[in-house]
Amino acid sequence: MDTMKNEELDRLFDFFRLIDREKFIGRQTYLTDGKRKENDAEHAWHMAIMTVLLAKYANEEIDVLRTVTMLLIHDLVEIYAGDTYAYDDAGKDTQAVREMEAAEKIYGMLPAEQGKWLKDLWLEFEARETPEAKFARTMDNLQPMMLNDATDGISWVEHGVHLSQILKRNEMTPCGSEILWEYARENFLMPHVRAGHVLEDPGDGADAAPL
Amino acid sequence: MDTMKNEELDRLFDFFRLIDREKFIGRQTYLTDGKRKENDAEHAWHMAIMTVLLAKYANEEIDVLRTVTMLLIHDLVEIYAGDTYAYDDAGKDTQAVREMEAAEKIYGMLPAEQGKWLKDLWLEFEARETPEAKFARTMDNLQPMMLNDATDGISWVEHGVHLSQILKRNEMTPCGSEILWEYARENFLMPHVRAGHVLEDPGDGADAAPL
Repeated sequence: MDTMKNEELDRLFDFFRLIDREKFIGRQTYLTDGKRKENDAEHAWHMAIMTVLLAKYANEEIDVLRTVTMLLIHDLVEIYAGDTYAYDDAGKDTQAVREMEAAEKIYGMLPAEQGKWLKDLWLEFEARETPEAKFARTMDNLQPMMLNDATDGISWVEHGVHLSQILKRNEMTPCGSEILWEYARENFLMPHVRAGHVLEDPGDGADAAPL
Repeated sequence: MDTMKNEELDRLFDFFRLIDREKFIGRQTYLTDGKRKENDAEHAWHMAIMTVLLAKYANEEIDVLRTVTMLLIHDLVEIYAGDTYAYDDAGKDTQAVREMEAAEKIYGMLPAEQGKWLKDLWLEFEARETPEAKFARTMDNLQPMMLNDATDGISWVEHGVHLSQILKRNEMTPCGSEILWEYARENFLMPHVRAGHVLEDPGDGADAAPL
């Protein structure tokens, strides 16, 4: 093995050891046992399999490997920037800066070409413009919605989440897949509005929501 | 949305909810904090990213998406068959039958075409014949070896593992990537033989091992 290759592998494995920390980053979504909450690595794994099987429902044709890779890495910035709960407005204000600094640090560990590739893929995910980024975002919203539904909406109840907040967060979910968004809205979300797990009030725009 | 599509999505999401259980299946490998052990979903996520970045080190060119998908799903059978520790010989005797039954059950939940596709991919992984299956197996062995190294070999120490057992288990690891196997052996394994974390005795074939 020549020295160059060793150095490259050293950098790659330093990165692989660092990203192990993704397994310690907790999310707000309960697993299907309703007891333990999911971590970022589990979340990414779940969405990657979903993408492989649901790609045909994308509005536009997607490159599946590109989308899967995007989803596998999209939360790595949280190793340094922390998880920001979807409905934490204060945290969201500083999220972009924190995550950009984290991205420089994490992807800077990799050999230049590979670091640039993954950082660009993360930026692509954030920009939500390509078919792959749109579909990845759809997965990122539907997977927790599926788990919230499977656990009687406890995560929504615990945070007192309003329907208008969910709909706002999901404004772009149909851009990745209208079929999947419609399916999720009808099967994972609306039953919990009717059951009172998700709050609805006339003043918050729920009436005007595109249901 | 027509009825067919709803039925197909119902089956797909039943599968997605079932595989959430992969997150509850513990492995023997400690995470880098040295405290908690890894679960199957975290393990699969980690290997998927490693594959994307290490594919160029494969002995033969591999289809990355095929390899990643194989790794994402290869442990799903353990949802019904349980995890069998690499050095549990008794468990290994019944493993094949238990896992085949589990595969029928799990992949039978999916629409026929997709179920066959993933079951075939799992069988391909088990057969270790294609370049993708060989590389996936290399990842499946190197990822825990990297974590064992990062945690002072505690998992090896706890199980009193011998070098000969590790070398036997890794007989086919170079078939996926000679470079990665050499790197892992020198950097993740041999330091722990020297430190006594991995047991070496003349009778177990360690002397004859290809080091």
